[in-house]
Order: sequence, then C-alpha cells, then structure tokens
Amino acid sequence: MASIAEKLADKHKEISIGEFFERNKHILGFDSLTKSLVTAVKEGVDNALDACEEAEILPDIIVEIETIGEQEYKVCVEDNGPGIPKRKIANVFAKLLYGSRFHDIRQSRGQQGIGVSAVVMYGQLSTGKPTLVRSKIIEKDYATELKITLDTKKNKPDILSQDVVLWEEKEHGTRFETCIEGLLRSGEHSVFEYLKNTAIVNPHTQITFISDGETIVFKRATDQLPPKTKAVKPHIEGIELGTFVKMMKSTERRRLSSFLVNEFSRISYRTVKDICSEAGIGERAKPSEMTIEDCKKILKATGNVKIMAPETDCLSPIKSMLIKKGLKNVLKGYQPEFYAPPTTREPSVYSGNPFQVEVGLVFGGDLPSDGPVKVLRYANRVPLLYKKSACATTTAIKKIDWRIYGLDQRGGKGMPSGPAIILVHVASTRVPFTSEAKDAIADIPEVVDEIEKALRECARNLRTHLNKGKRRKKISEKFMVVNDLLPLIAEKSAVIVGKEPPSLEKVMTKIMGVVYVKNTFEKDGKKWVGNININNFTSKKRKLTVYMEKPYPDTVLISSDPEPVYNGDHLKWKLDTLKSSLSRNIRFEYNGTLVKEDLSGIDVYIEGVTETDLIGADPLPDDWDIEVAEIEEGG
Amino acid sequence: MASIAEKLADKHKEISIGEFFERNKHILGFDSLTKSLVTAVKEGVDNALDACEEAEILPDIIVEIETIGEQEYKVCVEDNGPGIPKRKIANVFAKLLYGSRFHDIRQSRGQQGIGVSAVVMYGQLSTGKPTLVRSKIIEKDYATELKITLDTKKNKPDILSQDVVLWEEKEHGTRFETCIEGLLRSGEHSVFEYLKNTAIVNPHTQITFISDGETIVFKRATDQLPPKTKAVKPHIEGIELGTFVKMMKSTERRRLSSFLVNEFSRISYRTVKDICSEAGIGERAKPSEMTIEDCKKILKATGNVKIMAPETDCLSPIKSMLIKKGLKNVLKGYQPEFYAPPTTREPSVYSGNPFQVEVGLVFGGDLPSDGPVKVLRYANRVPLLYKKSACATTTAIKKIDWRIYGLDQRGGKGMPSGPAIILVHVASTRVPFTSEAKDAIADIPEVVDEIEKALRECARNLRTHLNKGKRRKKISEKFMVVNDLLPLIAEKSAVIVGKEPPSLEKVMTKIMGVVYVKNTFEKDGKKWVGNININNFTSKKRKLTVYMEKPYPDTVLISSDPEPVYNGDHLKWKLDTLKSSLSRNIRFEYNGTLVKEDLSGIDVYIEGVTETDLIGADPLPDDWDIEVAEIEEGG
Repeated sequence: MASIAEKLADKHKEISIGEFFERNKHILGFDSLTKSLVTAVKEGVDNALDACEEAEILPDIIVEIETIGEQEYKVCVEDNGPGIPKRKIANVFAKLLYGSRFHDIRQSRGQQGIGVSAVVMYGQLSTGKPTLVRSKIIEKDYATELKITLDTKKNKPDILSQDVVLWEEKEHGTRFETCIEGLLRSGEHSVFEYLKNTAIVNPHTQITFISDGETIVFKRATDQLPPKTKAVKPHIEGIELGTFVKMMKSTERRRLSSFLVNEFSRISYRTVKDICSEAGIGERAKPSEMTIEDCKKILKATGNVKIMAPETDCLSPIKSMLIKKGLKNVLKGYQPEFYAPPTTREPSVYSGNPFQVEVGLVFGGDLPSDGPVKVLRYANRVPLLYKKSACATTTAIKKIDWRIYGLDQRGGKGMPSGPAIILVHVASTRVPFTSEAKDAIADIPEVVDEIEKALRECARNLRTHLNKGKRRKKISEKFMVVNDLLPLIAEKSAVIVGKEPPSLEKVMTKIMGVVYVKNTFEKDGKKWVGNININNFTSKKRKLTVYMEKPYPDTVLISSDPEPVYNGDHLKWKLDTLKSSLSRNIRFEYNGTLVKEDLSGIDVYIEGVTETDLIGADPLPDDWDIEVAEIEEGG
Repeated sequence: MASIAEKLADKHKEISIGEFFERNKHILGFDSLTKSLVTAVKEGVDNALDACEEAEILPDIIVEIETIGEQEYKVCVEDNGPGIPKRKIANVFAKLLYGSRFHDIRQSRGQQGIGVSAVVMYGQLSTGKPTLVRSKIIEKDYATELKITLDTKKNKPDILSQDVVLWEEKEHGTRFETCIEGLLRSGEHSVFEYLKNTAIVNPHTQITFISDGETIVFKRATDQLPPKTKAVKPHIEGIELGTFVKMMKSTERRRLSSFLVNEFSRISYRTVKDICSEAGIGERAKPSEMTIEDCKKILKATGNVKIMAPETDCLSPIKSMLIKKGLKNVLKGYQPEFYAPPTTREPSVYSGNPFQVEVGLVFGGDLPSDGPVKVLRYANRVPLLYKKSACATTTAIKKIDWRIYGLDQRGGKGMPSGPAIILVHVASTRVPFTSEAKDAIADIPEVVDEIEKALRECARNLRTHLNKGKRRKKISEKFMVVNDLLPLIAEKSAVIVGKEPPSLEKVMTKIMGVVYVKNTFEKDGKKWVGNININNFTSKKRKLTVYMEKPYPDTVLISSDPEPVYNGDHLKWKLDTLKSSLSRNIRFEYNGTLVKEDLSGIDVYIEGVTETDLIGADPLPDDWDIEVAEIEEGG
C-alpha cells in the first residue's frame, strides 16, 4: 500500500495553461470545423472593434478567407485600429491569458485575453503553420511584421521571423493571417451570417468580406461612434463574501466608511451610515479588524439599504434608433411590414455586475412566415450563433405567451412562429457566458427577467401596430373619400345652386382631425425627387419638426426646399407654424445613383403632434433628438 | 494617436490562471447555488473513486452535508483511499491545474487537476473560510491535517495551520471539509440524485450520505472492482496535424518507421509499410527531415490504411451484468416489468481517442408512465445532471423513432415518453465535454453515432420482450391447463375404463416442448426458503447450469440442496443431466433478516437451453460466466 500512495503522489505534476487549453480547445470555440472558422474570424473582429472604439476610430474591417487546401483555409482580419507597438505584438497574439481588459469593470467584447491567441494556437495545432502578424502605429512610417507560434508548454510566443515592411495604404492598423483547418459553410452558422449580424449591431462599422475572391461589403450606416465606456468601481450588491473579505484585508483605508465609499461605486457617506447602523458596526471601525462575520453582516445590511444602481457609462447600449438603422441597413433584401420601436431597458445588476438589455422586433411583409421566429442574439455587440437552446435569451422568449402580442405559438409555449425577427442584446461589464467559447448567456435569473421585460415592452408595440393598422386603414380610406369626392360634390352642388364652390379645408379638418403626412420618391432623369406633404387637418395650429433618415450617412442632398436645419446622417426640417387646415410641402433631391431599394422603407418622423393625431408618419423616437443635439455640437 | 496605441499597449498584462477561474467559476460548475453544492460533492467523490480504484481498494465513501447558516453548508467527503503523502496534500487541494492524469491516455473521472481545488477556491470565495484536509497513508499511524486556502493571484496553496492527528477508525484515507454557499435541494438536480446515480454505475462502491444528521446508505452491490485501466499510446487516427508535427520534431527515433511503431498504438512495421507506400515516403526517412507537407501526407495515408482500433484496456466499461445489478440495487423502490439486457458496444475512436458506449433500459411495471422517459447520463462512470438538452446522449435519443421499439413518442420526434428509464454511459480516455463543468457531452458525430447504435441494440431487446410477452403468456396459460387439467382427465378416464392412470410426462412434453422454470420465496419462521423448480418438457436430455443473483454479495446462504458450485455475489448450480420429461428442484435458505423487497425481482439464468425453449427464466447473459471464471480463479 505504501508504494501506492507514494506512487500515485509522485505522478502529480503541474499542468501548463497552454496544454490545458490545447487539450480543451472545444471550450474556446474550436469544437467543429465550421465553428472553428467562425471563431477565428470572430476573435479577430472582436479585437479590431474593441481597439478602434477605444481609440475612437470609425472601424473599417477587412475579413479575408481563402481556401488553400482540403478543409484548410487562410483567415485574415485587418483593421484600421491604432496598431500595437512592436514590443507587445507577440504577447498579444501568442500568449494565453494576456490582455488589457481583464481587471477593468466595463463593457468590452474581449475580456480574458485568450481569444486571438487561441486562434494562433489552433492554427498551428491543425495545420502546423505559424501566424503572420503585421501592425503599424501612426508615429512610425513602417509596419512591423512577425511570424509567430505559441509555445504551449511555456505559454509564451516563439518568434520565427521579424521584419520591417512598408504599408502605404494604412496609416495605422493591424492585420493577421492564420492558416486553420475548418469548413466554409453558408447558412445560420456561417462566417457571412456572423459578419452580417455584427454589422446590424455595429452600424458605425464598415465590414468588407472577401471570400475566395468574391467581395461583400456591409456599408457603414452611421458615423456616430458608440459613446466610449468608462471603467467603474465594483458595485457592492451581490459581491462575493470572499472577494469582499479579501478587499477588506488588503485595503489601505483606515476606516470602514472610507473603505466603502472609495472602493465601491454608488456608496456615499450617508449610505454608509445606513449600512453600518443596519449591520450594527461602527463606521469608524478599522477594516483590518473586521472578521468574516462582520463582513457578512455588512453585506447582508447592504441588501436592506437603498443603494443606487451602478453607473451606466460603463455600458454602451446600441439605442433604439441605431438598432433600427442597423436592421434596416442589413435587411434591405426584405420589405417587412413593421419595425417595432426597439426597447432599451434601464441598466440593472446581477451579483455586482451592471447589465442592460435591448430588444428589437421586425414583423410581417415578405419575411419568411413558415417555421419559428428568427432570433438574433447579441452580447456586448457580438453576435451569438451557437448553443441557442442553452441561452438565457431563448429561455426568456419561451417564457412568454406570444399569442397575446399577435404572433403564432403552439399552445402558447416554446418558440413563437411566423414572419418576425427578434433581436436581443445584452450589454454588461461581465456577460455571464456559459463557457469560454462565449456561445450562450447563462440563465442568471436577473438577466432572464430583464430580457423577458424588454421582450414584452417591445412586443406591446407590435400589438399596438397590429391594432392601429386597422384604425389607420379606416382613416386613410375616409381620407381618400373626403379628399377626392368632397370637392366634386361641392363643385356640382355649387353649379346647381349657381354659387362659387365653398372652400372645403375647414370641413375636411372637421371630418379628419389628424395631421396627414405623405412622402414619395420619383426618379427624374439623373435625380431622385422626394416630396413630403404635410396636411394639418386638426383644429389647432402646429409647430412641426420633420425628420427623415438618409439612405446612407454619406448620401449627398442635391437640393431641398425648404433647407433642412440639420443634414447629417439624417435630415431635419423645422417648419414655421402650420395653421389649422393648411398644408406644406418639402421637396428635395437625391443623386440618381441610388437604387429604389435604398429609398424604400425610409421613415419620416414628426415632432409636435401626438401619435393618435398622426397618420402617414411616426412620432420621433425618444432617444433621437438627443443624439442629433450631440452631433450638432460635434459639427 | 501615438499616445493611444501606447496607452492601450501599456494596459496589457498577464492574467493569473487563478483569477481567471475565480472570475469564470461558472464554467467550473459553480453557476447556481444548487449546482455549487452538487459540484462540490461531485469533485470530492470523483477523486475518492479514482484514488481507490488505482489502489485497488473497494471504495467506501462518506458524504456529509451540514447546514451551518442561511445558504451556507459544510460539505465533507471522506474516503478509504490510499491517502496522500504530507508533502503533496496542499497542492492537490489548493493548486489549479495540478494533477496526475492529465498526460495519461486512459479512462478516469478526474483529468485536468482542477476539480477539488476549484471547490476549495469557491469555498473561500463564497464564505471566506479555509478548507480542512485530513489524510492518512498506511505506513503512518497518524494523519496529517491542514487548513488551507488557494492564493488565486499566485495559484498556490496558503497553509494556515498544520497538525498531526490520530485517526483510529481509518487505516488510510482522505477527508476534506469545506464551507460553501449553496442550496440543498431535492429532485432531479440534487446531491441525493447525484449519489444515487453514482451508486448505479459504480456498484462496487458503498456510499453513505449524511444530510443534516439523516443517513442514507447506498449498499455495495458487488465485490468486483472494475478492471484497472492501463495508459496507452496515442492512436494515430485523427490526431491533430500540429501535434503530429510536434512529435515528429521532438522524437529521438532515427527512422520514420520506428517513430510510428514506437510512439503510436496499434502500428506494426507491416502497417508502416502500407502507410509509407500510400504516402510515397520512405520508411527509413529521418523524422527530423520531415516537412509539414510530409506529415500531412502520412496522416492522410493512415486514413486509407487499415489500422487496428485502439487497445481497450485503457477503458473500463461497466458491462451488462453490473449495469443491471446497479439499476436493480437502486431501483428497489420500483417493480419494473422488464430490465432489458444492457448493451456494451465495441470500443470506437474519435480523433484518436478511444471511447465506448453502453446503454441500459428499464421498462414498465410501476415506473411513472406520464411525461418523458427518464434518462440517466454518464461519462466515465460519473453521472451528468445538468445541460441535458446540450448533450450528445439527448441528440442521439431524439434521432430515433422509438415507436417502432414500443415506446410512445409524439410524431416519432423528440424525447420518447412512458414508463421507462434509459441509461447511457460513455467511457473514454478523453470525454469531449462541452465545458469544464463536465455537464454534457459535445455532439461529436462519431460519439452520437455510437450512442444511437447502442440505443437501438438495447431497444430491440425491449421490442423482443414485448412480443415475447404475448407468446410467453400463451404458453404459460397452456401449461396451466395441461398441468392442472390433464391429470384430472387422465384419472377420471382411468377410473371409467378401470385402468391405472397413465404417466403423463411424455404427453405433456409433447404438448409443451420447453424447459419450464419456476422460482419462489417463502418466509419460514426465521428463514427465507427458496425453491427453483426446473421441468425439462423438451424431447432432448439436457445438461443445465443454473445461476441466481444474490440480494447482496454478503448475503449468507444458510443451506442449499444441491450445494452450489459457486457461492460469491451470486449462486451457480451445475445440475446432473436432466432427462426429457423429468424435473428437478433446488431448495435453499437465506437469513430471515432480508425483507421481501430484497428478494423481489431476483432473476434466474439457465445455461444449456436456447431462449426460445425456455420459460420462466432467462438464458445467461454473454458476459456473465466469464466474470464468474475470473472470480473462481481469484478465490
């Protein structure tokens, strides 16, 4: 027996983190040939976007995939980010658990410092070939190019070659080429799908996808960079006792009060008062002298004291307007009946981590109406393509009886079906992924709950739309009748009684009682002529502001009468007061190179009239003019 | 811009593996309060079983859970394993990625050297308390006791205290106590369920579960230890190119041939010939001179050359008889109608890793008949309780149209329903888990395929049973008629014709044409009297051997006439030749302390007659007498 205990003991050895992940590459997202290719692209794009946004650069990303053998591909991801200084390149690309965001509490795509190094590792593992990395920072007029592999035993980079190259077409940026074993597929789990979905929630990004020579461009839909996220201090709500004890032990603060105020977010001295009295511990107590029991009491107390929710500037939601823009920009192929105003929930917390849920919904038109509703899942602006059934988003969707919102659902259970697309975005300083592969969001009750609320909010808009649809139809018909027949009747009767035909506006106003908007586009030679006709068929005079999306931020307006007060990635006209019964027309011209598709489904928004009194246009979404303001300051 | 690239670069730091797992504790199985408790117990029991089996000790495991606060529990796992020498204890329990089995290619429960250290880490994280470990090896007459925590920054143990204690009741063994935050639940995802399911596939293990003072014992069902697994060399089929290149570079062999023969399993010099000619590379080529392209060619060639499947002594399947025993032992509460003879598939390979699938099926009787079939999922003898829907076993089950095998299934799709339990065991040198939490098996095509085959094989037995049921019923009725009426008729008619009543055996034999077995148990004062009555109603004389399971391996047989030739964890009688039309009886006595439940559903197996000629007993399962043989040598 002796021998055995000893024999077994002698076999215990340390295991290198590199070998661990090499062995467990499936938990890093390399568990199938198709997925490996998607993961490789994903990790590259995630890094590119994070880098660009931190440097406040509008991302311009090129993804290239080239078939170089049976189930072997060369994957390249190139960005216009700030670039990486020479001394850091190797570690960033060939050292696992090496990153810049692990200790920050803020929303970002990458977190663990594993992603792209895992790609390099999988590349050498599956094809035996090294990765080529090129990076250029602005103050240098040349780029550094490295050939590297990852030494899994030591978890450090092996640099096989190092060159200096010119890279004229790029002022700054990074590019890598890795050969990996994979399988290039189309459909739900394809690289194309991943890039398309990325474009939807990152409308500020331009993505060029070159697959074996064939090029697809997802055009930038807005010039607005998402507001930059700031790192915040941890929120005490739901922080682990063990972590709390550790912080308590290692703090330099002399007093419990200053410890709490300075090392946690949203805790004021007056909150400390409440916490301490609740916990029955003195505010001036020394952190060094706090026992585990004391710490427990304090944490318990925080549960019964009102503490502000975490700061939200560590999060970067996409916001209603851009979600819609993103969807429209990419769904051009389709003509849906209705884009529901997307929902952005207030930030919330799960075990100390702020998170925020957004939901968008597209319905009807020529969307495929057979089979279950299509769901686009996102975490921190990154599309989730795999493990749908294990994802909190799915859990939340299945909890809802969608029939009351106008979607089909067998027995009010499971996935709803019909012509609809549901978009769910969870933004958090720490998205609770089910695994390192970041395929799905874990069923954390708080998160599932928020998703459900957001879904219901958004779904209500669908219901309203479906109901309003009927009403709208009635009124429009009425309008047609009134507008076309009334004048004729008046004329005829005028002739009969031998009088001048009366002016009908007042009558019509009485009958209609709405602001009626009609916008049209007509091709006129080399130009597209647009008309927005606004009739104030209400009894009040109105000060109206008209907003209209532009097909693309860079679409040039040839002329407009009246002139818009804002002409950025959308147009804004402030109209003079419009008396009751009067109408006004806005005429503008676009370049004729646009195609019908670009112009179809472009929405007009009106400020200065309630939804119920408005036909033919939508009231302005809440979050919109704020953003306009920002831009106006900017420009 | 300069500043930015540099600023961002300066933020890049190394991340400690400890902090990484602390942050990602959910991928280690600590993602919910209920699950955390199950995981803690699981990791402890896994280690205990692995240690005992390696030391060839019949495992005797004690699991204690004590509520010590609101959502706080003390978890203890104690084993009778070989123990851990003092110098190693701390690292085994408080250092992540420290283990003995990582580099071995063989079936074992633990692999990565994370499990129990993760428990220690989660304990301190959630309760701030250290873990108490006690271990004793046989050559010492005292045990070492350590109080430890895991320093996540350095990923090394902090030893808070170290004592020497007597541990009289244990010759050798290990015990740890950790306080963790959790939630003690009953039902599908409970600690109880986990231990019960562990007992089913580890019938050689005795598990005592003490939950807040209440004790439940899962008795040992067999004294046979599973055959010890041996480490094997890697199998070339499906090995990663990168790994292959690495081996090629680092080998000391001078010739390609000796490299292949010596560093891979199942490759003979003759196979090398085929491979090399297929690949167009000389057998005597120098490994050091092989290029990536050469390596690719060689691997490609292996695909077209017949190479033996990997050795199987690195795997330890449970085997038909023990699966059945295990199920019976634990399902005592129920009286199922039918235990299908379990299926053990031949070992197979996925990317170089040998694996083997086993399936058991229990049907009917008083098993709950509403809702979906119950599925017991296992990997390397460890129950899987979570992520059912993401598991290869579920995928395989759903691929089958169960209606053709006699189970209900709506539309022949999804989970079958009805009174049945399906057991699936996947044994492998490397189970492809979907995450470190080891909750589910990834959908590797080869694995799913093998599971499906095993399921179908086993399901066929169910179908046969259901059909045979009808036939059996008919024959039994016939037998009753013949057996009871014929004699009367004979007597009456004898009286009438005034002759001696004729002997009827021959007639009955003609009519019946089967070996008819009947076994009964009757309580007789302090004893249980058992009778096995065997009638040879076939035209041939037969040499029959009778097997019967014992309620427990340690159940004592008071007497038996005739004497059994084997009296281990089951009984075996070799009967003298039994002439046609004759019958024989085996009478034996058990201790009366047994309860009816212990004796119900005990099966009799007969060797020497085909299934179709046998009524009232089953033919001997294929794998059984082999095991008997082994034991006989043993004793």
